[in-house]
Amino acid sequence: MRAVQPVLSLEEKQLLVAILFRNHFAIELVVSEINDIECGKKEFDLCTYKKLVELYDKIRSHT
Amino acid sequence: MRAVQPVLSLEEKQLLVAILFRNHFAIELVVSEINDIECGKKEFDLCTYKKLVELYDKIRSHT
Repeated sequence: MRAVQPVLSLEEKQLLVAILFRNHFAIELVVSEINDIECGKKEFDLCTYKKLVELYDKIRSHT
Repeated sequence: MRAVQPVLSLEEKQLLVAILFRNHFAIELVVSEINDIECGKKEFDLCTYKKLVELYDKIRSHT
């Protein structure tokens, strides 16, 4: 079952991101995605991969 | 350990939200937050609670 991302308002996206951090799950989500990409489970483009690593570093520096 | 939400760019927030949906986790996250609020595990304000329920309905209608 493919979860389609509905069109979300900026406020809805902010709310999702806030819940992620409130539940201490943001870094796990990013790490999981990076791992999936690195072990070939997911396709990726280099630009997105770099952004994920930068995002990981940013979140990590705040934990 | 309190996870502080770093200041994220809009692009970083979009990336986090995209990963949530890519991993079919958005609806679980919202449901978990609503449950925590409804069973008193988390403080909330009514406005945020209503937005969470609306967000749930929106995501649900796309799955």
